[in-house]
Amino acid sequence: MQKKVLALLREAEDNYISGEEIAARLGVSRTAVWKHIRALKAAGYEIESHARRGYMLLEAPDLLLPQELQPTLRTQVIGKNMVHYGEIPSSNNEAKKLALDGAPDGTVVVAEAQGAGKGRLSRGWYSPARKGIWFSVVLRPAFLPQDAPKCTLMAAVAVVRAMKDMGFPVGIKWPNDVLDNKGRKLVGILTELSAEMERINFVVIGTGINVNLWPEDFPDDIKDIATSLGMLRGGKVDRVELFARVLEALDDLYLSVEKKGFDDVLDEWRRYSVTLGQEVNVIGVKETFAGTATDIDADGALLIDTPEGRRRVLAGDVSIRPRRK
Amino acid sequence: MQKKVLALLREAEDNYISGEEIAARLGVSRTAVWKHIRALKAAGYEIESHARRGYMLLEAPDLLLPQELQPTLRTQVIGKNMVHYGEIPSSNNEAKKLALDGAPDGTVVVAEAQGAGKGRLSRGWYSPARKGIWFSVVLRPAFLPQDAPKCTLMAAVAVVRAMKDMGFPVGIKWPNDVLDNKGRKLVGILTELSAEMERINFVVIGTGINVNLWPEDFPDDIKDIATSLGMLRGGKVDRVELFARVLEALDDLYLSVEKKGFDDVLDEWRRYSVTLGQEVNVIGVKETFAGTATDIDADGALLIDTPEGRRRVLAGDVSIRPRRK
Repeated sequence: MQKKVLALLREAEDNYISGEEIAARLGVSRTAVWKHIRALKAAGYEIESHARRGYMLLEAPDLLLPQELQPTLRTQVIGKNMVHYGEIPSSNNEAKKLALDGAPDGTVVVAEAQGAGKGRLSRGWYSPARKGIWFSVVLRPAFLPQDAPKCTLMAAVAVVRAMKDMGFPVGIKWPNDVLDNKGRKLVGILTELSAEMERINFVVIGTGINVNLWPEDFPDDIKDIATSLGMLRGGKVDRVELFARVLEALDDLYLSVEKKGFDDVLDEWRRYSVTLGQEVNVIGVKETFAGTATDIDADGALLIDTPEGRRRVLAGDVSIRPRRK
Repeated sequence: MQKKVLALLREAEDNYISGEEIAARLGVSRTAVWKHIRALKAAGYEIESHARRGYMLLEAPDLLLPQELQPTLRTQVIGKNMVHYGEIPSSNNEAKKLALDGAPDGTVVVAEAQGAGKGRLSRGWYSPARKGIWFSVVLRPAFLPQDAPKCTLMAAVAVVRAMKDMGFPVGIKWPNDVLDNKGRKLVGILTELSAEMERINFVVIGTGINVNLWPEDFPDDIKDIATSLGMLRGGKVDRVELFARVLEALDDLYLSVEKKGFDDVLDEWRRYSVTLGQEVNVIGVKETFAGTATDIDADGALLIDTPEGRRRVLAGDVSIRPRRK
């Protein structure tokens, strides 16, 4: 009902709509209307109240609320079910809990802030309130667990496609770091899997996008290696618009993968890659080596040509070596 | 303390030991000794009490209690932490909960009965009280998630090694069905994985072993395709002995895998296999086909030679076609 009240306020655009009219059109009491208006205000909507004329929506809050996103979201699976939090410790942990309780394919968990955001390999992810998009998606794909690592490439492709559509110069460093054209990190992705040996129970893809962080917002240890879209643009970026574009790109890619497999995702990944063709250092699970990154294979592994032959990297940190002048 | 009282009773073998002596040696009151004796009796131990002579252990209960197993268990990791239940819905689900709460590498969850035992692909597993060994092991290996499917081969190898050591004629049908020499099923294994893309959080290996089920114990739908070790032997089999041997074999294999990888496990699997060299029908995820099972590869996938070439099977049901006379 709150969504319906909001829809009528939006429909009225820059005009007042009376409480009486809202009550009549929705078939509820005027007291009920008043309560919903109060709840919308509490959620951050700026609503002008006038004793005779009624209500007018002045400004939607800068929050990633389902009622802001869902009405115009063009997706078939991703975000049809969406849960919003002011602050939670970790959207991935929350999504895993919901998945264990049966949350459907495409469920999105989004938080304005994370108290203990998780990055890869037990690293943290700095997630201050309303400065970024900190969210996790629950997927229940039909493909085999062996294909799950490619979800993380798919997520990076979705984010980059959305950002490029909005004009940002970004690329992907293998496997899923989204960087600006100076190599500074904009996005972190942490994919987790729950599976039997031949069936996926669920995949949770957690994504953190630095949107409106300014230089003074970054902790000292990451301020030289991280940046934000707002800093790239030199001004505030609309989080709701970006979030919707990312979810739509992810929906498109996910439906394609379920139908045709990962080939198209891998091709799009190659187009966005800043790693391929570069001299790289690989810090692997057991050893460190250098070579030329030539391609990714059908499993999403990075192929590196070294003096001792071609090597295949499934896990580890890859750094791009600066070109000699 | 209860374990220490039990140890003294065992030490006395077929002689009485007085409550006074137990109290003195353990530094507790005679009332405390009496309470521990009462608890042991409640757990199923048959203990003779004599007013003047004291206590004598007549028979240990036919239960898979940690205090029965652990004192003689020769393992380094598996079963150092062990949790025993009379009945739980599913040992795998319980093990996953404990793993999420931080249960250490090698934790064993064992139940005398499962109310809703789980098999592969949402099938059930019939787990009547004290008739089998229904248990799950939590592993936290250092290898990559891509290697996790081989855990299910490792578990089958551990079970078969233990059974062969006890003289049973058993073999493995790919990937992890343990069968008698007439092709009847003795064991079910369900392996579940929780992982990030490049790190395993935990693996839970659930194993159900039909030990002392008799023909009348089996439900109609499985009585022609399943059997038990007791039926093979024509008499009761010691569950504690078998369980200890399985855990010891698993410990040995797991330590070897962590040190040297899966090659030795795959070789032992090949020796126990009843699938390799056979004509098989494969009911795969998307299609059905027939061919000759020739080998498993380094990923544990089954390799099938068909008229159209070699095929690689990662998931699905494989049935062995009877040889023509």
